[in-house]
Amino acid sequence: MLDFQAILESIQKNATEAPDKGAVATYIPELAHISKDNFGIHLRTSDGKSYGAGDFNKPFSIQSISKVLALSKAMSLIGENIWKRMDVEPSGHPFNQLALLEIENGIPRNPFINSGAIVIADILLSNLENPKEDFLNYVRDLTNDQTIEYNQAVADSEKRTGFKNYAAANLLKSFKNLDNPVNDVLDFYFQQCSLEMTCSQLTKTFSFLANKGTCMLDKVRLTETQAKRINAIMLTCGFYDEAGEFAFEVGLPGKSGVGGGIVALLPDNFTIATWSPGLNKKGNSKLGMLALEAFTTKTKLSIF
Amino acid sequence: MLDFQAILESIQKNATEAPDKGAVATYIPELAHISKDNFGIHLRTSDGKSYGAGDFNKPFSIQSISKVLALSKAMSLIGENIWKRMDVEPSGHPFNQLALLEIENGIPRNPFINSGAIVIADILLSNLENPKEDFLNYVRDLTNDQTIEYNQAVADSEKRTGFKNYAAANLLKSFKNLDNPVNDVLDFYFQQCSLEMTCSQLTKTFSFLANKGTCMLDKVRLTETQAKRINAIMLTCGFYDEAGEFAFEVGLPGKSGVGGGIVALLPDNFTIATWSPGLNKKGNSKLGMLALEAFTTKTKLSIF
Amino acid sequence: MLDFQAILESIQKNATEAPDKGAVATYIPELAHISKDNFGIHLRTSDGKSYGAGDFNKPFSIQSISKVLALSKAMSLIGENIWKRMDVEPSGHPFNQLALLEIENGIPRNPFINSGAIVIADILLSNLENPKEDFLNYVRDLTNDQTIEYNQAVADSEKRTGFKNYAAANLLKSFKNLDNPVNDVLDFYFQQCSLEMTCSQLTKTFSFLANKGTCMLDKVRLTETQAKRINAIMLTCGFYDEAGEFAFEVGLPGKSGVGGGIVALLPDNFTIATWSPGLNKKGNSKLGMLALEAFTTKTKLSIF
Amino acid sequence: MLDFQAILESIQKNATEAPDKGAVATYIPELAHISKDNFGIHLRTSDGKSYGAGDFNKPFSIQSISKVLALSKAMSLIGENIWKRMDVEPSGHPFNQLALLEIENGIPRNPFINSGAIVIADILLSNLENPKEDFLNYVRDLTNDQTIEYNQAVADSEKRTGFKNYAAANLLKSFKNLDNPVNDVLDFYFQQCSLEMTCSQLTKTFSFLANKGTCMLDKVRLTETQAKRINAIMLTCGFYDEAGEFAFEVGLPGKSGVGGGIVALLPDNFTIATWSPGLNKKGNSKLGMLALEAFTTKTKLSIF
Repeated sequence: MLDFQAILESIQKNATEAPDKGAVATYIPELAHISKDNFGIHLRTSDGKSYGAGDFNKPFSIQSISKVLALSKAMSLIGENIWKRMDVEPSGHPFNQLALLEIENGIPRNPFINSGAIVIADILLSNLENPKEDFLNYVRDLTNDQTIEYNQAVADSEKRTGFKNYAAANLLKSFKNLDNPVNDVLDFYFQQCSLEMTCSQLTKTFSFLANKGTCMLDKVRLTETQAKRINAIMLTCGFYDEAGEFAFEVGLPGKSGVGGGIVALLPDNFTIATWSPGLNKKGNSKLGMLALEAFTTKTKLSIF
Repeated sequence: MLDFQAILESIQKNATEAPDKGAVATYIPELAHISKDNFGIHLRTSDGKSYGAGDFNKPFSIQSISKVLALSKAMSLIGENIWKRMDVEPSGHPFNQLALLEIENGIPRNPFINSGAIVIADILLSNLENPKEDFLNYVRDLTNDQTIEYNQAVADSEKRTGFKNYAAANLLKSFKNLDNPVNDVLDFYFQQCSLEMTCSQLTKTFSFLANKGTCMLDKVRLTETQAKRINAIMLTCGFYDEAGEFAFEVGLPGKSGVGGGIVALLPDNFTIATWSPGLNKKGNSKLGMLALEAFTTKTKLSIF
Repeated sequence: MLDFQAILESIQKNATEAPDKGAVATYIPELAHISKDNFGIHLRTSDGKSYGAGDFNKPFSIQSISKVLALSKAMSLIGENIWKRMDVEPSGHPFNQLALLEIENGIPRNPFINSGAIVIADILLSNLENPKEDFLNYVRDLTNDQTIEYNQAVADSEKRTGFKNYAAANLLKSFKNLDNPVNDVLDFYFQQCSLEMTCSQLTKTFSFLANKGTCMLDKVRLTETQAKRINAIMLTCGFYDEAGEFAFEVGLPGKSGVGGGIVALLPDNFTIATWSPGLNKKGNSKLGMLALEAFTTKTKLSIF
Repeated sequence: MLDFQAILESIQKNATEAPDKGAVATYIPELAHISKDNFGIHLRTSDGKSYGAGDFNKPFSIQSISKVLALSKAMSLIGENIWKRMDVEPSGHPFNQLALLEIENGIPRNPFINSGAIVIADILLSNLENPKEDFLNYVRDLTNDQTIEYNQAVADSEKRTGFKNYAAANLLKSFKNLDNPVNDVLDFYFQQCSLEMTCSQLTKTFSFLANKGTCMLDKVRLTETQAKRINAIMLTCGFYDEAGEFAFEVGLPGKSGVGGGIVALLPDNFTIATWSPGLNKKGNSKLGMLALEAFTTKTKLSIF
């Protein structure tokens, strides 16, 4: 019988003592000042138990992790029509995301690279009455937690400095793959990415994907097939150009964010979330990746 | 309780009646004459039962499926040293495999694109006493079947016309990522790819990957971690630039070959193999992909 | 002795009768309605004579031709400092201009691709007191013609729909290669491109480049070296990915615009301008290219 | 009146004293041992005068300079049919020549990148009775000098180690853009590149291109149009990805070789050749580039 609490604590101890904790992302000014000494890990099993170590109750900017939730909402709204506007293939490219979008005529590789997530934001904007509020409520309901909030300062900071996202959105617009005005889409997109959550909230939120589409409150959020597909996309595309590495070393569907968070899950078994703000060279949380690798190595729990 | 035999038969029936069976690959002249009407499917469960429909006992050229077996052998010979010479990331590129190799200084993206498989062939050449015989025996032993053979005509055909592989191998050589002479490496590589097997043999051979590294005869072939890693690479890189699609639609680690074969597996559960020579536009068996999609949809058996 | 007037008239006659006049660019809505039947050609020799045929006195949108004038002005303002922010190499790429900019860290290949011209616009914005008026006056003075005007409707049309330029400018901004806000730079850039001129005016304007930097009124506009360099860039980069073709078939430094204009010159000899709104597949005036090819073939006047 | 001899001597003096002479190419082992202290420059005017300084009578490996002569010969043999198999556009790419060839379906960008030159070699192989001897005689006749020879050791060295050329040739073959076997084409290509000549011989050889196609002995080698076109290609494509720079700084059609030679010309005026084995980062002779820049700056002789 696995002693999850002991495992998490041992992982947290190692993380605390790690000599190299990566580098905090500086391109979002508001995130640049977060201390690298934060480390949290939280596990929630499908039978309702939960375990945590370190700063698992401290909120942080979930950033790209929100793309999974946006995709879920979009799927529940327009279903398979999403795939008319993007693909589900890994991009395999660190260095030239716009290049790929340009060659492929404005069809993003998948919903987790920025251009794909911007198209998803465009879909939500067209299909939600009050996009920002509705999306926030969607996440709050998934988590059964009405305290979750956007961080307006982070959203505003991105709006002023997120030039690469403006470039991507304008390129999408030039290929007619955005229905709404560029500024409106990015206003929503930056808001969505500014969501703040704790590791503990994240393991709650993502439970519906480990549970065939049904969330904590037994509400059906997605069909079983839709949940399975989102898990597949997380596995092949969830970690930028380190997706193969994560599958190889960790072996779980998951998604990282530039704020240092990672969430991952084993269908029918558990969800797990880590937070450590220092990133590795590929933009994923350095200690978070190692923590999850240690977790699946010790527990031998993975999809493979 | 699932009636696997009935499911396979129904899939085979649909395949037989499919109006569009794809196009047989013509770039390997020896394979161009195979009839698209061949269709076989075979399932082998971890508890030892097996089910088949159609031409599951007819041998075909496994081609790229052999890359998984070559990787397994190389891993058992030199372990993690493999990753000094290649990466484990999906390439994300249909159209310019050499481009990527050139930009990335001769380090192939993964062991399943041709350049990576050629480096694996180089490793086997350096580490096996009688490479062709030893590799054949390795596969025969995995399968517990001494009748498996190379098809010399197919190997020779490739040797005369496989110019893109010669280009890739010379590019690797220019980056000093081949130890042996280009012609020797390709001589072995084409031989390896010319292996002929049936669906039934393939489900046997690949059992060790569904069984934590231990093959049919209870011999340990790979460590549990190694088997898990090969499964991860199959999932992220096993279907060229359709890997995301296969994960999304089928949700199993697997590998396809240009001869029309596909093998896939669910760890601790089963291996499955299909054969249908007509390919889709991305070079994977058209009906094989559909058959596996139907199988996981009907049985709800997938890693996600 | 060459009869220039007869040559121009014969060229114009052929153009009028050409069965395929290309396709008018539609991506700038304001230009989409111009008739393909317009054709003008005008020649001005260094000894002061001028010849014309067809619609050489009809104004049209010079678009990218303005990039040469903007470069000249920027050179006269900050000299060699320009080359800290861009290169002088042909891009060689029709299809992925943003890709190249992304790979090369925001350093445009040359001042005549859009990203380079946008950086030049940024330079003018920083160095001119009243950028739009000052630039207009610069062109009027070069031409000694105070009637030259911007077309505000064309500029406004681009401002609303030029999404690819917004994408490029934001990408430049993300690499810190724009000092001014994106919208300000593009506001000026679209204005500059909206200049309307006739073939006859263009041959006047460009005389300073055929005359070692000294314009019609004997005012020194550029040093001899600067004029020579702009001619070199026109030759290697003046026709998008058809620069080699133009050098090969015509053999003169020149610059085309999407409005169907082309201007070219032989140093110490002449300037020549054509206008025909139908474009070939590479975005250069179809009949204009043929006209200039015919001109240098008949006259044997080229730099080679 | 320009004192050419004094100018060349002053250039040579500066070259001798240059602190940084670049780096000798090491990828062709036979060339790696040539001293960087060699420097020669030679000028030949169209009225028959010649001037030289330094090692202008010392033979060196002309390497890629031979591509111009091979193109001339091919043009005289099959004329415009050449352009069915390649283009005349600058490649704009230092780093991924094979990438471009792959994307563009085996059609080389121009006859001066390696892949284009290999196709030209294929054309000569198909159209000459005794390719190696015939080509050597062609060059000897152009120069009116029967002492010109191949360097067999250099050719053999390349044949053993020129893996990138083997990669390019096999890629061309895979696209069916080589008629002859890869090894035969490269055997001829490496031989052609191994030609040894002096600066003084080069200025003689290239006179026909400065003289409308007619060589020293008044034999018509190419039509005036063909000569003009080769000059145009030299200008736009003669210096790898530094073609724009050379046009910008020097302003003459020219061609460099990895052996450190450069030849350039002003139509109807002169041919000039330099030799200095140290290369700059882009693979062109460092001091040779500077010498030619100094020459055109001092003499104000350029095509622009």
